[in-house]
Amino acid sequence: MRDPEKTRQQILDTAFWQVFQKGFNNVSINDILSQTTVTKGAFFYYFPTKNDLGYAIVDEVLTELTLKRWIHPLNAYKNPLQGILHHLKKIIENTPDKNLQWGCPLNNLIQEMSSVDPIFREKLNAVLDLWITQIENHLKKAQTEGHMKKTAHPRQVAEFIVMAHEGAFGMAKSFQNPKILWSLYHSLRDYIHTLSI
Amino acid sequence: MRDPEKTRQQILDTAFWQVFQKGFNNVSINDILSQTTVTKGAFFYYFPTKNDLGYAIVDEVLTELTLKRWIHPLNAYKNPLQGILHHLKKIIENTPDKNLQWGCPLNNLIQEMSSVDPIFREKLNAVLDLWITQIENHLKKAQTEGHMKKTAHPRQVAEFIVMAHEGAFGMAKSFQNPKILWSLYHSLRDYIHTLSI
Repeated sequence: MRDPEKTRQQILDTAFWQVFQKGFNNVSINDILSQTTVTKGAFFYYFPTKNDLGYAIVDEVLTELTLKRWIHPLNAYKNPLQGILHHLKKIIENTPDKNLQWGCPLNNLIQEMSSVDPIFREKLNAVLDLWITQIENHLKKAQTEGHMKKTAHPRQVAEFIVMAHEGAFGMAKSFQNPKILWSLYHSLRDYIHTLSI
Repeated sequence: MRDPEKTRQQILDTAFWQVFQKGFNNVSINDILSQTTVTKGAFFYYFPTKNDLGYAIVDEVLTELTLKRWIHPLNAYKNPLQGILHHLKKIIENTPDKNLQWGCPLNNLIQEMSSVDPIFREKLNAVLDLWITQIENHLKKAQTEGHMKKTAHPRQVAEFIVMAHEGAFGMAKSFQNPKILWSLYHSLRDYIHTLSI
């Protein structure tokens, strides 16, 4: 007998990758089913509509990915400012060239769905806000522990780091060249150095 | 008798606004025709396919818009670094709140079309490269005339300014709040000050 939790997760994971690579509107339920062992009946049991699947991708996959990819690794660093830079470097080094064309899964869905579906927008905002707020908290810690200047604004700096990251991955999608990600790294390094103590 | 140049331009301008607000795939030729006085026959005379119209939007409308909105105004400033900041401030002040939901027309098309159509990608890259190269040229001038540190890399700084701008307008599309654009301004101001002499 099937494990219902596993079936649901299999649909979510498969759908996430297809939506990441082709966009939400360009992926059909049949496209997703053809890459799983799940029946249409089972699919609709877990996700009554394609939008319900899209919302679950944002709520579950994107939220978890943001925490795993960007936030949890920062806990390993004593100095959060250095942590952000070291970790960004690792992310760039570990991004295969062929993935550049797909951009950032969060940014893709924001650009595609935010202005046409208010529920998508609200859920995407929650992920974006989580990412910014978690970085902000690390920056506040950097201030408390004497690594960052008291005159810097943690929220504003966190927003700037996330926007530059999203802009760089969005441009890399078009240029398909990691050079643009290294420009992000070098300029953010210069910027973050000005905030450091 | 119709003026052929005006007819073509009327199609282009109408299509640009519809694509900006709804995305390329969400706009049909009929949507565009319904907002013009142009017949379907005339439309196909100027643009044999919808993609041809899309390519002309990039080559003509987006190229001109980039030069008019971002590059030509910089000529009015003696110090290009101050010029970039003053001009960014003006752009933010002049962006109506209701426009935030539409994002940046260049970024929208890159995210939607770059990975699915190589001709779109090539043309969008040309506009992005023009924007970056023109800012790079202003920064080189800033170095030659003693306004910017010789240790700074004009290309890298130009790429960073454009990526942060695109990231901010992409996020504003979701947050629908000008606050994020002011974060862009304040952080870029701090960053640019570190490059200034």
